[in-house]
Amino acid sequence: MDNLTEKTIKSEEIFSGKIISLHLQDVELPNGKHSKREIIKHPGAVAVIAVTDENKVVMVEQYRKALERTIVEIPAGKLEKGEEPEICARRELEEETGYECSSLELLTSFYTSPGFADEIVHVYVAKGLTKKEDAAGLDEDEFVNLEELTLEEALKYVTEQKIFDAKTIFAVQYLQLQEALKHK
Amino acid sequence: MDNLTEKTIKSEEIFSGKIISLHLQDVELPNGKHSKREIIKHPGAVAVIAVTDENKVVMVEQYRKALERTIVEIPAGKLEKGEEPEICARRELEEETGYECSSLELLTSFYTSPGFADEIVHVYVAKGLTKKEDAAGLDEDEFVNLEELTLEEALKYVTEQKIFDAKTIFAVQYLQLQEALKHK
Repeated sequence: MDNLTEKTIKSEEIFSGKIISLHLQDVELPNGKHSKREIIKHPGAVAVIAVTDENKVVMVEQYRKALERTIVEIPAGKLEKGEEPEICARRELEEETGYECSSLELLTSFYTSPGFADEIVHVYVAKGLTKKEDAAGLDEDEFVNLEELTLEEALKYVTEQKIFDAKTIFAVQYLQLQEALKHK
Repeated sequence: MDNLTEKTIKSEEIFSGKIISLHLQDVELPNGKHSKREIIKHPGAVAVIAVTDENKVVMVEQYRKALERTIVEIPAGKLEKGEEPEICARRELEEETGYECSSLELLTSFYTSPGFADEIVHVYVAKGLTKKEDAAGLDEDEFVNLEELTLEEALKYVTEQKIFDAKTIFAVQYLQLQEALKHK
C-alpha cells in the first residue's frame, strides 16, 4: 500500500494536564473507513547515559506512581517549554545526580509509545563527570536515590527487574555493545 | 531516602477508551507534602524480533497517528484481555507479517514511559520463520507494508529516523550486539 496516512476528521481535547494532554480523534483510514484514535501529547524528554571515570554508569532509584513501585533508571526528565534538549540533559544530570560533565553527545532519539503517545526521548552520553559543589536540587515533588553501577551490576539489575524501563534497558545494552566492540 | 513511596490520597478516572484510560491522582510524597500525578493505564503489549533464515529482520511500516507519520517497526501489538504474551506474540507476528515461527523466546520486558504510563512491552525473539498459507489478517483498522532488512539496512533506517521508536531501536541494537559477540 502506497499511502498509509490516516486523515483527521475531528479532534477533541479530553484533558489538558500539567504534563500530558489527551485527544480523541476521528480518522479516515487508507481504505476510506473511519476509526477512532486515542492520542497522548507529551512535551518530550531527555535521558543521560552518564559514565564515571571508574567506568560506572550513574543511575537514580525513583518511585514511579504509574507502576506503583520504585525502579532504577538513567537520569531523565521532561523538556521545559522551549528548552533545548542538550540544556535539559545537563540540567537533569545536575539536579538528579549532582554531576556536571565535560563531554555530552546525542546518541539517539526515540518515540517511547508510538501506538498512543508522541513522547520522544533524546538519549545523551555524558563523560568527564565531576561533582558540582553548588549543584541545583531536585524539583519539589522529586525524590531519588543515587546509584553507580558497573556493567555487570546493571545487567544483574535488568535480570532482577530493578531496571525495568525502555530507555534504561537500552542504555545497559548500549554499554554492553561498547564493551563487546572494544574487545573485538 | 529509604522510602520513596507515594501514597494515593484520591484517584479519579478522567477517561476510559478503547485502548487507554486516564487517571488523575492526588498523592502524598515521601516528605508528607501533596502533589498530582497524571497516569495512563494500558493493557500492555508484545513485540517480536523476527529473524529470517537469510538473517534479515522482519519489520512493518505503519502510520502512527500520534506522530502523524509512518515509521518502520518490529511487529507488535496490544495484549487482548487475559491473553498470554507468548500467544499474543505469535498472533501479532502472523497477522502483521504472515510468518509463523518454530522458536520463540522472551528476551526482555520493559515499561515504555514510566513517568506517566504503565504500558509494558514483552520483547520476543522469533526464529525458524515460514510463511503461513492461511495466515490470519490484520485488524480492520490496521494497514502495514512488510520490509525485511539486513542489519546494515536497519542501522541506516535508524540514522534516517525511519526506524524511530524505542522497541525497534532496542531491537536493532540487540542484533548489533549479537553480531559483535559472534565475532569476538
